[in-house]
Amino acid sequence: MAPTSTTLNTSTSEASVSPYSIDHLISDRSKNRSFKHFAANADENAPKNFKPHPKPLALSFGRPNAQFFPVKKISVELDHYPFQDSIFEFETETAEQAEPVIIEKFPTDKNELGAGEAFQYGDVAGLPNFQKFLREFVETIHKPGNDQWGISASNGSGEGLNKVADAIINPGDIVLFEEFTFSPFGNNVRNVGGIPVPVKLNFKSTEDADIDIKYLSDLLDNWDEIYPEYSGRKPKAFYTIPTCQNPTGLTQSVETRQAVYDLASKHDFIIIEDDPYGYLTLPKFEKPNKSTLVKDHSLTVDEYLAHHLPKSYLQFDKEGRVIRVETFSKVFAPGLRLGFIVAHKKIIEVIKKYSSIVTRSPSGAAQLILLNIIQKKFGGINGWLEWILRMRLAYAHRRNVLIDSISSSEAYSKGYINVISADAGMFASLLVNFPSSIPSTEYVEKLNLLNYKFLEKGVTVVLGYKMSINQAFSEPNANFLRLSYAPLDTDEQLAEAGKRLGEAVEEFFENGFEF
Amino acid sequence: MAPTSTTLNTSTSEASVSPYSIDHLISDRSKNRSFKHFAANADENAPKNFKPHPKPLALSFGRPNAQFFPVKKISVELDHYPFQDSIFEFETETAEQAEPVIIEKFPTDKNELGAGEAFQYGDVAGLPNFQKFLREFVETIHKPGNDQWGISASNGSGEGLNKVADAIINPGDIVLFEEFTFSPFGNNVRNVGGIPVPVKLNFKSTEDADIDIKYLSDLLDNWDEIYPEYSGRKPKAFYTIPTCQNPTGLTQSVETRQAVYDLASKHDFIIIEDDPYGYLTLPKFEKPNKSTLVKDHSLTVDEYLAHHLPKSYLQFDKEGRVIRVETFSKVFAPGLRLGFIVAHKKIIEVIKKYSSIVTRSPSGAAQLILLNIIQKKFGGINGWLEWILRMRLAYAHRRNVLIDSISSSEAYSKGYINVISADAGMFASLLVNFPSSIPSTEYVEKLNLLNYKFLEKGVTVVLGYKMSINQAFSEPNANFLRLSYAPLDTDEQLAEAGKRLGEAVEEFFENGFEF
Repeated sequence: MAPTSTTLNTSTSEASVSPYSIDHLISDRSKNRSFKHFAANADENAPKNFKPHPKPLALSFGRPNAQFFPVKKISVELDHYPFQDSIFEFETETAEQAEPVIIEKFPTDKNELGAGEAFQYGDVAGLPNFQKFLREFVETIHKPGNDQWGISASNGSGEGLNKVADAIINPGDIVLFEEFTFSPFGNNVRNVGGIPVPVKLNFKSTEDADIDIKYLSDLLDNWDEIYPEYSGRKPKAFYTIPTCQNPTGLTQSVETRQAVYDLASKHDFIIIEDDPYGYLTLPKFEKPNKSTLVKDHSLTVDEYLAHHLPKSYLQFDKEGRVIRVETFSKVFAPGLRLGFIVAHKKIIEVIKKYSSIVTRSPSGAAQLILLNIIQKKFGGINGWLEWILRMRLAYAHRRNVLIDSISSSEAYSKGYINVISADAGMFASLLVNFPSSIPSTEYVEKLNLLNYKFLEKGVTVVLGYKMSINQAFSEPNANFLRLSYAPLDTDEQLAEAGKRLGEAVEEFFENGFEF
Repeated sequence: MAPTSTTLNTSTSEASVSPYSIDHLISDRSKNRSFKHFAANADENAPKNFKPHPKPLALSFGRPNAQFFPVKKISVELDHYPFQDSIFEFETETAEQAEPVIIEKFPTDKNELGAGEAFQYGDVAGLPNFQKFLREFVETIHKPGNDQWGISASNGSGEGLNKVADAIINPGDIVLFEEFTFSPFGNNVRNVGGIPVPVKLNFKSTEDADIDIKYLSDLLDNWDEIYPEYSGRKPKAFYTIPTCQNPTGLTQSVETRQAVYDLASKHDFIIIEDDPYGYLTLPKFEKPNKSTLVKDHSLTVDEYLAHHLPKSYLQFDKEGRVIRVETFSKVFAPGLRLGFIVAHKKIIEVIKKYSSIVTRSPSGAAQLILLNIIQKKFGGINGWLEWILRMRLAYAHRRNVLIDSISSSEAYSKGYINVISADAGMFASLLVNFPSSIPSTEYVEKLNLLNYKFLEKGVTVVLGYKMSINQAFSEPNANFLRLSYAPLDTDEQLAEAGKRLGEAVEEFFENGFEF
């Protein structure tokens, strides 16, 4: 049921804000958890004449003094560009850029995060300076449409998504997924008793690739008829990767985002926005040319924010029903295990309780290194985005090398494959154009055979169907490949991988779709 | 039921090993999870003439090349002693000790962990070099009594214990706890449907403080009569902190450990050994004297291992029923969020599956810093233990300062309080000697009042009862305090805290046990 005005939360002081009450969308499991530290001192029953000492000395917590941590000072040297010596060989590093970041144990500036603090037990939602940075970052880049939002650090997107699953899903709850998706989140949903249900995507034509809004709208309007087995249990949430969707590469239009949000309002569900690659929107494909890369494609941060960075669902969110999950894995390094979640503060509250009991805080070592680099080396949010723009150029170049190689292949000339999407993030998606003699019911079998051809030629790819959330539902659309231009070391390897891929497809097609 | 020989696992090649089959002690939840990455390539159905390429190029995983990580080199300066400038002001640091550790992005020595590897996605059980170190460490220090053990890194003890709860507890399973304990683990047990049940401790006399083995043995022999509500459901596990038990400070004797292990064998339960402070066994209390601290109390690593480090339950474990949970929080720094679990490899297997889905790997930044310091600065396991011995001296000194202050108080002289235990770890426990006019049913109320006296005087402590796993069960024994000499900054503060504590107790006792 859509909420009526009588279910709106009217407990806030300003009636005009009237934030949507999301209590009914929070899982019972997470609402019922309680956490209180045994060393915490309550004073609700204090004797009448009790006056607490202004500076109590702590013999309570088992928290080692920072002098027990052997680290005194950390110094970090950085590359100014990723692939400084190969892709950006035409750019020289200045002396200032080569200066290391110095991280003190006890910095005098309170806005700096020191090793003494980072190596201590810390807030499960992130160390205070890190939380402050995250909050300013979200305010600047994706300011939520309501003022009820909160923030919590996570141990990266995967772990952040698990926290979200715990926070909202009761056993038996339905969660909508884009039919091809980052399928591991399905494990987290099932782990708490949720049921993933696919939503159709249009992704095979570069021009109008997007969520199939008509399908989604009809599905929600006619839920009980379409899914009689889930009758009376309309979806609790929709999990979406709106920019550079993994694996199809599609990026939702602004209109689609508004339409999806309106459906969420109407049908009362949560939008879980997973956005690991969203910062890496790329210029259009062209022949690779390192020597003019920076000159031709550099953006200012203002241009980037105004014209190249898609809006977050947070920005449409008048009711506090959007949960955004972000990570530093793709824009800094996955090994940090550091990300964050933005959501209605009631959801952040239950997530913090979960963290206190189950996962504890993200590593202070990771927060220490990342925050000091951003603040002391990059100079804050603007410089951080400039780093992301330098990464963007490196990804654009590598994408150009791979797609150039593939489009020079016979398989491509003959129309056996075509590129559907390669304009954002780290993935290109490639359609495998089976002729009509191959029925769609044989796509999976044929793709598995083609995969052996890839492995024989020496290139690994992801077969589209392996990222379906419901294979039977998506088999007719499964004739595509996800190619990542992120892992390989050199341009030469990327070009060679494209060549091997083309040869494998050509041999497979010309051998009657047999190995 | 105790296992019979027919339930023994006979699938191993050496019949003489006959490791105990622990399958029935693993939770259904964790056994039934499956995890497979969508980018993994199976070849069980490969075409007959398929030959994989020896060097495939990867377009599959969304794993950014290490050149995308801006960190080029990290240098870490260390203190040789904790509290180098205060407690160890009589010791001078050598030039060699002051040399920083240099961490390269791509070290040429394969035994070193580089930033390029640590900042990448890594094994959920820990990066290979870190796992190798952990395995050698366990082999050297606490070699398990069976060869079926495995190891997995964790995000610290709290998170490690949660993994253990998930791995073994089915809804309705009973877990025994020492009656006073690190009570937050109760939350993890309840979170997966387990039921904590307390076991009596003798801890009020320094001489024979230990687990009450007779109580435990009787409890297990007469389970159905003592707990008719749990009839037929004998305990699945016993959670114990065998060394410097938190909060009582007791350390189990070797005989107790053997007896508990024998009971575990007989009654078929798992021993969960939590050992965060076990390395910090301390010399006996004496008047604090910084100038002779190193000379009087230094141990060689060999002496320490032979005479001062208690045995782990792992060493008694012929059957693979011990799970040991360790952390680097207390011997390096809590903010790392890094620890490890040693257990039967089948338990490690289900823990790894849980990690793959739920928590992902511990931070590579933490592993990078810790492992490089241990290997390149401390020179490996021996040097690591030497660091721990230097920490031990610092803890011993701080304990001396606190206990010296408390034992100089009027409250102590008058017998209102006495020290039960202060010989290991970071906690001292203090008995509050209420007269017989205060019945034990009033202990909690009186301790709460006394606590307001502490807060008024300006010292925080942990009231024993707050760490009981079942308050009603433990109230008669709850007249004690846990004091931590870990957090405060200076000797002066520790002495002042002890003084305030003494004054608070004195005033409370002499005001007729009223505020």
